[in-house]
Amino acid sequence: MKKIGTRDEAAARRAALRDRLGAEKLQAILVTSTVNVRYLTGFTGSNSLLLLTADEERLFTDPRYTTQSAEEASCEITIVKKGPLLGEAIARIKKAKIRKLGFEKSHISYESHAKLTEELPASVKLTPLDGWVEEARLVKSASEIERIQESVVTNSLAFDRALRRVRPKMTESELAAELDYQQRKLGAEGTAFATIVASGAHSALPHAHPRHEAIGLNRLLLVDMGAQQRGYMSDMTRTVVVGKASRRMRQLYSAVLEAQLAAIDAVRPGVLCAEVDRRARITLRRHGLDKQFIHSTGHGLGLEIHEPPRLGRTEVRTLTPGMVITIEPGVYLPGEGGIRIEDTVLVTETGCDVLTPTPKDLLVI
Amino acid sequence: MKKIGTRDEAAARRAALRDRLGAEKLQAILVTSTVNVRYLTGFTGSNSLLLLTADEERLFTDPRYTTQSAEEASCEITIVKKGPLLGEAIARIKKAKIRKLGFEKSHISYESHAKLTEELPASVKLTPLDGWVEEARLVKSASEIERIQESVVTNSLAFDRALRRVRPKMTESELAAELDYQQRKLGAEGTAFATIVASGAHSALPHAHPRHEAIGLNRLLLVDMGAQQRGYMSDMTRTVVVGKASRRMRQLYSAVLEAQLAAIDAVRPGVLCAEVDRRARITLRRHGLDKQFIHSTGHGLGLEIHEPPRLGRTEVRTLTPGMVITIEPGVYLPGEGGIRIEDTVLVTETGCDVLTPTPKDLLVI
Repeated sequence: MKKIGTRDEAAARRAALRDRLGAEKLQAILVTSTVNVRYLTGFTGSNSLLLLTADEERLFTDPRYTTQSAEEASCEITIVKKGPLLGEAIARIKKAKIRKLGFEKSHISYESHAKLTEELPASVKLTPLDGWVEEARLVKSASEIERIQESVVTNSLAFDRALRRVRPKMTESELAAELDYQQRKLGAEGTAFATIVASGAHSALPHAHPRHEAIGLNRLLLVDMGAQQRGYMSDMTRTVVVGKASRRMRQLYSAVLEAQLAAIDAVRPGVLCAEVDRRARITLRRHGLDKQFIHSTGHGLGLEIHEPPRLGRTEVRTLTPGMVITIEPGVYLPGEGGIRIEDTVLVTETGCDVLTPTPKDLLVI
Repeated sequence: MKKIGTRDEAAARRAALRDRLGAEKLQAILVTSTVNVRYLTGFTGSNSLLLLTADEERLFTDPRYTTQSAEEASCEITIVKKGPLLGEAIARIKKAKIRKLGFEKSHISYESHAKLTEELPASVKLTPLDGWVEEARLVKSASEIERIQESVVTNSLAFDRALRRVRPKMTESELAAELDYQQRKLGAEGTAFATIVASGAHSALPHAHPRHEAIGLNRLLLVDMGAQQRGYMSDMTRTVVVGKASRRMRQLYSAVLEAQLAAIDAVRPGVLCAEVDRRARITLRRHGLDKQFIHSTGHGLGLEIHEPPRLGRTEVRTLTPGMVITIEPGVYLPGEGGIRIEDTVLVTETGCDVLTPTPKDLLVI
């Protein structure tokens, strides 16, 4: 096993992609997604392009990143002093006499594609590629799983620490600030997404923004949070109650937990993603709550918080060992509140490991 | 003056855009940038499209946002239950018999544009539009300026509060966490970008990531931070010293401050952005430091942290009252350290207002 984040690992990823280029009769690929560039080079800057040809692996970035790119990236680097990086990449493509160039069709704008078309010779064939690098990113390496696990543990510890400070008069925003702060103190670079803290009826909005309003007593309190640590994401949702939980809250919670456990139970290699989603849905249907489950059961995560596969009704992919996904069914009752329970889960050779260590019994504080 | 964030303001923006459609002989525009959708509707969700035609203003989003979109947006809403939003927008474009459709050329992927081409009748003319909404966003309204000012004040107060806790043994990451936490406690939704805290030689990287390393004594400490509050960004950089500042540090600092003040002095309506940049550069040249200034002098900000105009050598725009920009020259000496001083500045009728209240004398803690 290669060491985490070594240049070797990025180099091996580039080699695999270049092999695929050869197999599909392309001479080069222009990688325009900065996340994909990071995956393939280790470079974490915000402005980058990567050109891979048979003879060359070249990263383009700007002078703000001269030192950083040299420290991080294991390939050739061009620092573009003036103008957009794409202009320089086009010059290089011309110079290398590339005739068959692949590009990332969902990560290049109409505008940039038009520039390629206009500035490259008409003889250059441009081939739209669909998620080549994302395909490689689907299955995580041991070093990636280690980073995700680290991010998951940070996230859960931050949840524990912040929850100890919850008081009914605390606002949603204050709790969100506390959660984020604890993550950072535990080593996260930041959050994986804007932390959701939603109390009472507000929790019926699956993507609620924290408000400057008190959490209050005897209400549902939904917390959806994720850390970013050494580039890798985690994602967890817990719904708790400050004060007393009503019978109704307990019933709803128990139904969602049953659905979440049923979905996790279905996670193993070879299973259709849509099947995992279906398991959550049929469990909720038995409780008359399937219509209140208004999103999909989960998603992959890694360098991004949302990656393939999608665990939804129409996803035709099957699970493979090394995939890392969320399992997060929820029910949302407008005017009343919402409950969601979410873990980060690793698909293993024999089934799955729930990476998230936080307990799932209804926590009443 | 309309009240902040009222539905009226968004409606007026849409009306202005629809007027432009008419003037340029287009029948509709498809807005694909979620930030632009927010600007035009008030909707803050992460998944959205907006279709404006002569007869209709229609927002598309998914069921996670049913309640939120109804609360926030002042136009018609379609909740798309299955599949990508674009499919539904295409159906609507067909139904409305649109023949001339404008699209945002830098905010639509090759893939989505291909879908438009494939699924719309061949008779529909697709016209790439270049920054129409960004053009409208260049000049901020009174309510936007109020929000930016609020964000700027939060940012500066958070800096003050966190700086009081600085100790030489504190790590860069811990200080970054503290800065972010103080912002949140002061009402920010989050940071405008990943907070930069860089000590000693690390500060020579303009976009440094905070490390788990102590700030240390008698070193340059560069802090670049911004808040996001009610959607609007702020941006400030200060370079301070914990312990004692050397004569060399004071000389460098004084040169950068002189450049920053010279650039601010040049900010007024009618001045070329490139001229403001040149002022900073010629000041640094007098100190033999222009080659160490490896980025542009500033950028616009608002709903995004980087917006037009760019205050760089080649920017041909002129400043207009209501623009909000950063002025942030810096010098970077590899192995030694970097100094940057940055304020958020409003262009006024007669010159400019430096919105950032934080002092700029070299702070030695």
